[in-house]
Amino acid sequence: MRVDGRNSDELRNIHIETDYLKHPEGSVLITVGDTKVICTASIEERVPPFLRGEGKGWISAEYSMLPRATQNRNIRESSRGKVSGRTMEIQRLIGRSLRAVVDLEAIGERTIWVDCDVIQADGGTRTASITGAFVALTLAVAKLVEEKELPSFPVTDFLAATSVGIIEEAGVILDLNYIEDSSALVDMNIVMTGSGEFVELQGTGEESTFTASQLQEMLAAAAKGMKELSAIQKEALGQVAEKIGSTSRKIDGSEDQ
Amino acid sequence: MRVDGRNSDELRNIHIETDYLKHPEGSVLITVGDTKVICTASIEERVPPFLRGEGKGWISAEYSMLPRATQNRNIRESSRGKVSGRTMEIQRLIGRSLRAVVDLEAIGERTIWVDCDVIQADGGTRTASITGAFVALTLAVAKLVEEKELPSFPVTDFLAATSVGIIEEAGVILDLNYIEDSSALVDMNIVMTGSGEFVELQGTGEESTFTASQLQEMLAAAAKGMKELSAIQKEALGQVAEKIGSTSRKIDGSEDQ
Amino acid sequence: MRVDGRNSDELRNIHIETDYLKHPEGSVLITVGDTKVICTASIEERVPPFLRGEGKGWISAEYSMLPRATQNRNIRESSRGKVSGRTMEIQRLIGRSLRAVVDLEAIGERTIWVDCDVIQADGGTRTASITGAFVALTLAVAKLVEEKELPSFPVTDFLAATSVGIIEEAGVILDLNYIEDSSALVDMNIVMTGSGEFVELQGTGEESTFTASQLQEMLAAAAKGMKELSAIQKEALGQVAEKIGSTSRKIDGSEDQ
Amino acid sequence: MRVDGRNSDELRNIHIETDYLKHPEGSVLITVGDTKVICTASIEERVPPFLRGEGKGWISAEYSMLPRATQNRNIRESSRGKVSGRTMEIQRLIGRSLRAVVDLEAIGERTIWVDCDVIQADGGTRTASITGAFVALTLAVAKLVEEKELPSFPVTDFLAATSVGIIEEAGVILDLNYIEDSSALVDMNIVMTGSGEFVELQGTGEESTFTASQLQEMLAAAAKGMKELSAIQKEALGQVAEKIGSTSRKIDGSEDQ
Amino acid sequence: MRVDGRNSDELRNIHIETDYLKHPEGSVLITVGDTKVICTASIEERVPPFLRGEGKGWISAEYSMLPRATQNRNIRESSRGKVSGRTMEIQRLIGRSLRAVVDLEAIGERTIWVDCDVIQADGGTRTASITGAFVALTLAVAKLVEEKELPSFPVTDFLAATSVGIIEEAGVILDLNYIEDSSALVDMNIVMTGSGEFVELQGTGEESTFTASQLQEMLAAAAKGMKELSAIQKEALGQVAEKIGSTSRKIDGSEDQ
Amino acid sequence: MRVDGRNSDELRNIHIETDYLKHPEGSVLITVGDTKVICTASIEERVPPFLRGEGKGWISAEYSMLPRATQNRNIRESSRGKVSGRTMEIQRLIGRSLRAVVDLEAIGERTIWVDCDVIQADGGTRTASITGAFVALTLAVAKLVEEKELPSFPVTDFLAATSVGIIEEAGVILDLNYIEDSSALVDMNIVMTGSGEFVELQGTGEESTFTASQLQEMLAAAAKGMKELSAIQKEALGQVAEKIGSTSRKIDGSEDQ
Repeated sequence: MRVDGRNSDELRNIHIETDYLKHPEGSVLITVGDTKVICTASIEERVPPFLRGEGKGWISAEYSMLPRATQNRNIRESSRGKVSGRTMEIQRLIGRSLRAVVDLEAIGERTIWVDCDVIQADGGTRTASITGAFVALTLAVAKLVEEKELPSFPVTDFLAATSVGIIEEAGVILDLNYIEDSSALVDMNIVMTGSGEFVELQGTGEESTFTASQLQEMLAAAAKGMKELSAIQKEALGQVAEKIGSTSRKIDGSEDQ
Repeated sequence: MRVDGRNSDELRNIHIETDYLKHPEGSVLITVGDTKVICTASIEERVPPFLRGEGKGWISAEYSMLPRATQNRNIRESSRGKVSGRTMEIQRLIGRSLRAVVDLEAIGERTIWVDCDVIQADGGTRTASITGAFVALTLAVAKLVEEKELPSFPVTDFLAATSVGIIEEAGVILDLNYIEDSSALVDMNIVMTGSGEFVELQGTGEESTFTASQLQEMLAAAAKGMKELSAIQKEALGQVAEKIGSTSRKIDGSEDQ
Repeated sequence: MRVDGRNSDELRNIHIETDYLKHPEGSVLITVGDTKVICTASIEERVPPFLRGEGKGWISAEYSMLPRATQNRNIRESSRGKVSGRTMEIQRLIGRSLRAVVDLEAIGERTIWVDCDVIQADGGTRTASITGAFVALTLAVAKLVEEKELPSFPVTDFLAATSVGIIEEAGVILDLNYIEDSSALVDMNIVMTGSGEFVELQGTGEESTFTASQLQEMLAAAAKGMKELSAIQKEALGQVAEKIGSTSRKIDGSEDQ
Repeated sequence: MRVDGRNSDELRNIHIETDYLKHPEGSVLITVGDTKVICTASIEERVPPFLRGEGKGWISAEYSMLPRATQNRNIRESSRGKVSGRTMEIQRLIGRSLRAVVDLEAIGERTIWVDCDVIQADGGTRTASITGAFVALTLAVAKLVEEKELPSFPVTDFLAATSVGIIEEAGVILDLNYIEDSSALVDMNIVMTGSGEFVELQGTGEESTFTASQLQEMLAAAAKGMKELSAIQKEALGQVAEKIGSTSRKIDGSEDQ
Repeated sequence: MRVDGRNSDELRNIHIETDYLKHPEGSVLITVGDTKVICTASIEERVPPFLRGEGKGWISAEYSMLPRATQNRNIRESSRGKVSGRTMEIQRLIGRSLRAVVDLEAIGERTIWVDCDVIQADGGTRTASITGAFVALTLAVAKLVEEKELPSFPVTDFLAATSVGIIEEAGVILDLNYIEDSSALVDMNIVMTGSGEFVELQGTGEESTFTASQLQEMLAAAAKGMKELSAIQKEALGQVAEKIGSTSRKIDGSEDQ
Repeated sequence: MRVDGRNSDELRNIHIETDYLKHPEGSVLITVGDTKVICTASIEERVPPFLRGEGKGWISAEYSMLPRATQNRNIRESSRGKVSGRTMEIQRLIGRSLRAVVDLEAIGERTIWVDCDVIQADGGTRTASITGAFVALTLAVAKLVEEKELPSFPVTDFLAATSVGIIEEAGVILDLNYIEDSSALVDMNIVMTGSGEFVELQGTGEESTFTASQLQEMLAAAAKGMKELSAIQKEALGQVAEKIGSTSRKIDGSEDQ
């Protein structure tokens, strides 16, 4: 019933290649079906102006696509001279999501820059970015811990993202590819922790609407996918995975600026 | 238990003043507690390039704040030379939401520009904008119908928005003001139709997370608020309200560009 | 002889609503016929770079129109990514005019930001902005004086602005509305103090010219209008009006950068 | 009494070198004391969008300074990425002034681009630009007439500009140089036609004000200077000068966009 | 004598992986030592404005680096809002070089967009980009020929690039890596055809100079490297390589705009 | 055989007028045939951020054309809001070239800003800029030395630039004017020192290529032109010329950022 023959609650093939690049503190190439994203994490030894002297760190994310990651070539945002609304929305989402599972006080006055560069797109680039960025960030942080730069392991839980949606032919489906996304009546991106709590929930009726019961059905499909994603991340991280959540984290209610 | 003495599922005082300005086809001043937004709807007799010759119309929204709408003065986006990520995110949300209850084919090759200008901010400016913009747009469209420019009334349902969230002192609350929003652990904006279906659902743990049962509690509070908002819109629209949904609408699955 | 039945030397109906907004130190809604402008004054506890350490303050003005303040919708300057020449010209005029009646040394190393946002336009938006901004600024300054932040009252005189012009049907007229402005052969904006001295004089032949005797006639009409504007400002300010000019001011010849 | 020994109503030495550059249709180097401006006029065979199909032409002016035209080097506006408010104000003034003495219908659907580039600045760059640009434009137009491209000579009168002001040491003075301009209490730029009518009048109290009688005194000094400027332009133009105003011009009241 | 043990006239290990991405008409991942560049070629069925109706095509190149392609993270050019001088210089070089071996008339009114995105940098990114882009472009063009869109094979010769330079420890060297490039006294980029002719020669003394005999020595080293690069390209292209230069090309002297 | 009757290895008429402007520390008007460039050198008592505290100075160059320096009017880069790739390339070339003959340590923590403004263009504007800028810079530096601000004369050698190229009618030619440049098969800009060493070599086949022997022929023509250019510079500099190279300079291999 789905264009690529998957079951409605089946993820695409997912692979995470760690230490993909030579220079960054953490890097992965994440492959979700035909979607491929290079995610890197870079440590900067200072924080943005609004946090100076606060004794805590920050995570900032940037997202971009190669011009020909898509079916038709897109004009570069650097050539346009400005970043699109879509890009900004995605960047903010990635940064906010990652900050939910990192103890910012524990990383000290540092910024972790997360860069997600889509080299091939086939739907779900923002959720693949989050899932991959979590691994790159964890690797970078593990290096800091190893070098005794941090007192404790600041990553408090696993974090991954996927999409669910409603298409006419198949009803509620998990992990939409580009063709499915293009015709979806409802599209929802969900970011969850390894322990099954929500971090972000963004559901949109595309010139359409959805009912409360459809919402419940989508949430159930997402929960199933999340468990599988956490397992894939765990395997990619190897021994580093064991340190996640090892230090308890206090929730201080401080907010996104 | 709330700073302004409201019950946890109580909206602030809401007032919608219609025909607030002289020039626009539709305009309102919406007041939600101390939040005040001027919403206007302007008809342009052409569509954006990606829709030319498609025989359907478009709704485009812009959002801005006066520099001193807030406690501290903000630099104008025109002076900065660029629109912030937050503004873009809100503009896209408003436009997408309104398009879910308007039959774009029925309005013909026209663009309805919706402008939401916040003159005073006390939390919930994006949801107030959507609730007010729906009324301004409906008034503008009613004028087109009256002038026989449209074959049928293209607004298919009521549409309003509000926020729900979780604060430490009070748990789940409805319609957060600025102080509540600043300390919220979870913040969720919900856009619903008059018939109780979801159009948008954007929930965010602010350096925090939320469980499935907290989500259900928030959805219930939102549903209560929505009914009251529809009633306020109905009163503001007077006789025009009766035409909403009078023409059935076919869902064509075409999507936001 | 005038489109709205006024005498040639008659102002439109003018109303100044003080404390229009909740957050700014000073704010008004000024209504001049169908022209409506929100003017706010905000105190910032520092000065621009070129004045640092000079022991004096600054007044900076910004001006904008809502997109649909006019008959046809204008594209936002934030969307264009730059401020138009017309806007810059008006902003500079407002700032320069206000600085002529404020003792900048007496306000200390502070910037007073004046924001004039036109929500409805029917001609004369820049002169209405100056007339309203003077009241908002005086209110903000009075608050500083009340809080013992300033040693003396730094506003040295009243300040208001209006337009005069020449139209074919009626010759010299006072306070042009949009229709008159559109067809005027000559258009002159005049900023004067309460004691009848000139601060700014900007006369323009619109693809036309004017003689010395026409100039004298326009100056006379302006002088009449100015007296009435000062009276309206005085009433709006109430007791605060009495403090204006109470401290003598030394002219130091320092200039606009 | 003046820093350079001039009488209070004496212009600086003025020279206009015509046909200064090889490529433009009209060009001059105008020297006013130590102020030097290259003015060129270029013919473009089309009009801006707002005039298309109206059967009339347009005059558009641009103004710039070399970075080291002044005592201290200024950052280029191209490096800043935007044109300053001062530059825009001057550009608009030059264009508007020239349009007052050119019959735009007579030049047909053409744009005359006037470029004023200050290579050395010592006060009065905007008035020198107008005085020089008038000559460059007249030369360019004469070429069009000679080539039978125009039915009649479209320049209806001479046009020149100068400044007057008030300084403490000398009272009202004519044609301020940079030192005088820097300390002036009042600064007024005046644009007049050869027949003694006003085109523009822009007087500014620099953190100061001026009386009606001081205004009259300044107007008288300006009128004297204008006669001398017209004579200098006439000599520079040679035989072309005789054609100015040879065709009568109808005033149509159309306005600056 | 070289940091990585190479002989002075030895290239780094070079690998070209063809058809690296799914969407572009032509794509490669080129690896030169630790430098890795994704090169894609995209066909657009129209030409830039300056070529419309001329009956010939165009090749336009863009170049970018991932923020963390380098040792330290660079700010994205899209975030800066402008493309750096270095990027522009490289883009122009790549485009100009490729146009020297493509018969632009034979490709008809099409633009071939070449995108070179550096994912890992270790010196020589611009020369690796040219060498890889040639292969990507040839693959894209071969597809057009195969689909009978072109009358003949428009690539007239092989094209590759490398660097030569002078370092203190080793004298003239071929194919500089980042460490060598950082300390080079002279740095020269050379673009040559398969038949040994020069397309571009850009030599720079880095706060230093070079003699005529040093120049000759560098040209000799470059020539040796070029032969090896052509062989690597030939192997990567397989059968397509045989079509290069199969159609003779007339030189028409038309120039880069 | 050349359009202006010159021999193939003959420079155009060249004139350098020193102290052309009043304000800059050094300034010239250089005339190369019909190409005219104003070159100025300005001393700023600080260095760019990347050099702070390094105890050495910097030379930064900017290049621009008046809009009507060319046959057709160009839009100003300040109006476009960005500097073109061509301009950036030229600016970088001028700065890099000058830095090769100035001992940056000897000038201390200062920036010398070099501005090259083309007022009339007829080919070879970048090489004329370098040749003129060298004289302006040397004059500015001589003033610093005279005022005892510098310990020694920091200019280590003469520096000039010219072009060579290949045209169909005449083969290899020296110093191309605009017409020759437009039809050249190969265009090469060469920057050399007074002692005959290369600083920059930029050769480009314009949709064409060149052989090794053609390269040698071009280098020979350039060498001849360079000697003549040095002589012209020497004469323009008068006694200051004698100080060039009087202090020996150590090459430290530090590089262009």
